[in-house]
Amino acid sequence: MRKINLGLIGFGNVGSGVIKILRERKSYLKDKIGIEISIKKICDKDTTTKRNVPIEKQLLTRNADELIYDPHIDIIVELIGGIHPALELISEALKKGKNVVTANKALLAQHGQELFALAFERGKNIYFEASVGAGIPIVKALRESLIANRFNSIFGILNGTSNFILSLMSRENCSFSDALKQAQAKGFAEKNPSLDIEGIDSAHKLVLLAYLCFGKFIKLEDVFIEGISAVSLSDVTYAHELGFEIKLLAIAKKEGSELEMRVHPTLIPKTHLLSSVNAVNNAIYVSSDLAGNLLFFGPGAGQLCAASAVVADVIDLIQDIKAGLFRPTLNIMQDISIKKLRSIDEFESRYYIRLMALDKPGVLAKISGILAKLGISIASVTQKEKHKAHIVPIVMIIHNAKEKNLRNALHLIDRLDIIKEKTVAIRIEEV
Amino acid sequence: MRKINLGLIGFGNVGSGVIKILRERKSYLKDKIGIEISIKKICDKDTTTKRNVPIEKQLLTRNADELIYDPHIDIIVELIGGIHPALELISEALKKGKNVVTANKALLAQHGQELFALAFERGKNIYFEASVGAGIPIVKALRESLIANRFNSIFGILNGTSNFILSLMSRENCSFSDALKQAQAKGFAEKNPSLDIEGIDSAHKLVLLAYLCFGKFIKLEDVFIEGISAVSLSDVTYAHELGFEIKLLAIAKKEGSELEMRVHPTLIPKTHLLSSVNAVNNAIYVSSDLAGNLLFFGPGAGQLCAASAVVADVIDLIQDIKAGLFRPTLNIMQDISIKKLRSIDEFESRYYIRLMALDKPGVLAKISGILAKLGISIASVTQKEKHKAHIVPIVMIIHNAKEKNLRNALHLIDRLDIIKEKTVAIRIEEV
Repeated sequence: MRKINLGLIGFGNVGSGVIKILRERKSYLKDKIGIEISIKKICDKDTTTKRNVPIEKQLLTRNADELIYDPHIDIIVELIGGIHPALELISEALKKGKNVVTANKALLAQHGQELFALAFERGKNIYFEASVGAGIPIVKALRESLIANRFNSIFGILNGTSNFILSLMSRENCSFSDALKQAQAKGFAEKNPSLDIEGIDSAHKLVLLAYLCFGKFIKLEDVFIEGISAVSLSDVTYAHELGFEIKLLAIAKKEGSELEMRVHPTLIPKTHLLSSVNAVNNAIYVSSDLAGNLLFFGPGAGQLCAASAVVADVIDLIQDIKAGLFRPTLNIMQDISIKKLRSIDEFESRYYIRLMALDKPGVLAKISGILAKLGISIASVTQKEKHKAHIVPIVMIIHNAKEKNLRNALHLIDRLDIIKEKTVAIRIEEV
Repeated sequence: MRKINLGLIGFGNVGSGVIKILRERKSYLKDKIGIEISIKKICDKDTTTKRNVPIEKQLLTRNADELIYDPHIDIIVELIGGIHPALELISEALKKGKNVVTANKALLAQHGQELFALAFERGKNIYFEASVGAGIPIVKALRESLIANRFNSIFGILNGTSNFILSLMSRENCSFSDALKQAQAKGFAEKNPSLDIEGIDSAHKLVLLAYLCFGKFIKLEDVFIEGISAVSLSDVTYAHELGFEIKLLAIAKKEGSELEMRVHPTLIPKTHLLSSVNAVNNAIYVSSDLAGNLLFFGPGAGQLCAASAVVADVIDLIQDIKAGLFRPTLNIMQDISIKKLRSIDEFESRYYIRLMALDKPGVLAKISGILAKLGISIASVTQKEKHKAHIVPIVMIIHNAKEKNLRNALHLIDRLDIIKEKTVAIRIEEV
């Protein structure tokens, strides 16, 4: 075998990065792997817009069938994103005996189980390094380098947009909406940013990481998801004063025989490495039983970062194809110690709480009375400077409490006439 | 192929960790890879001391020939460390058609070139993930995940012992010698700790990382090495006040067509992730041209951490053997843009300088006069509280200066009669 033919579906930002790398480093890569990677066809619905990489016109098509039904194409790289038609295209490609590389976290999070089963049935592989953390080699690390390990937990900063916004709020004291505007101006956030800032994108990636660590495909609807749009600058500031940073964390955590899956803003101690992960960077902190606690850090987005991972996957597939090797079994072992998903109600945590209360005697007594009645104990209280006339922010750190109890308490507290805004509660992770 | 036979040379700490994992996870790993890993023979000069893993007596031998000349053994795992007889054993094993896994950084740093050439000639592989950063999957990441990248620099905290000592000095304000004693008491430092604290071990690992990134085997004697034994608590404290942590950094850095290779105590800004890498942890910060700046962090030592990496290497080799795959070419591409090694004299840096001067007028004028004459410009000066009677520490930050010029200046300064101790100079890296 001297040459491998590639079909690319999706000639957008990452797609043109892949073409750029394969073109500019053609001989370099050929020397490294002993095989030429040839781009046989590129499919995109837009075949006219000029990309930042020169390409022969006859390589372009709007018809994906020209790739999928071409018997000379060995590998399909899918970079269109979204569920449809990516799902149908990948399925058909697998059925036609092709191996697949994709960066499509939304698709794999929702249809990964059926796609991997189909790939397995057909003796083909789906590689997806670029779908989590762009160029950070976390998928391969979990699947291959840590193959002998069992995992306890994953804590991930998986969404560059959200992290950029939170970093900006923390470093430059700007409000959420100003930070979002800056992110949009710099191209780090979409016009409609909800997929990113509401935690959905992080949840997609978390499902994939949990699959790699625990061998289970958790349904997206079973992941507790809370975004960062309700995080206010004052919370970022108060958290700071208490020695914390607020990050949007994606967490998969084994607690006894239960697995917790959740994405939410989280207070992390400033002493922890994750708290120093700023800007559009991503990081994944993995707790494994043999190799210990590992952190993988790098840019979470970017044309060439993601393309770097796609090309590495292509080369891995080439090694597999060259060798007739089929290694999907490397990643489908279930962690049988996990019996069920823990519901968010049952989950326990320390909390940061900010109440906006009237500035008059007896307020604290009322609040702490309700907390005490629900068995929630206060670790610290600080009354902040007056916010508006007669209203003072009261910041509390709550000892480990059940989410359900805390919610009940806050429900009661927020009905008190001394409470003037909805109380904010943010989970604290010791990591 | 249903079974792979393994021969282990070196039944020490990591060796027994490997056996423990292969025993306790036998069926788990078999299910994952579809092949049984069988331990055929274990060689150690000590066959009587009880290890923390039960083993059949007949597996043990003191004669390595029983492994190397056994045609049924497919993979030799070398974990005895040191140059001899590891070099001879691995060479002979390769000649006998065996693939090799080793954690021996000293050996590979000094004889890697000939060993890899021999492996290549025989169509066999040497895998060595555990030799750098224990269970941190940095070797595989550089070789496979980042295969399409070119590299600009590597900054590594590669020695757990040194990092433990420096962290302790920084966090608990203890002296170097007290910190060393604690490290020894905890088993993190050897009785004779010089290999670790003098930077030799870091240099070994740096040579391997530079090989992976730049395709060149730099001779150990061409690496500039300075250990941490001269770092004093006052320097750690003053560095702190200036916003830095002192770390023993191993640096491989491309500057134009030149490569710098050096290991020395370094001031790193507290805002950088590397400054938060504490205790016996290791971290490698890699600057790549596609995937960007990546950090890999984890425990730098430990029985199971290293064994985790050894087992992953064994499984990779099994995949290779199963497939008849031979992929040493993945890692021997030279970076042809590098024309020469930069000598330490030519290298430029900012510096932290601490002078111990008599507390009298005109002192600063004399010192700054010498610096100015050699073209060295001062960024900041702080006179600290009196140390002993009449002697004051003066701490300076020096703008980018050539090492040679700085050394010349310090040589002149240290001859002044107002200078009462040898001046300390520590390089600053912006990273």
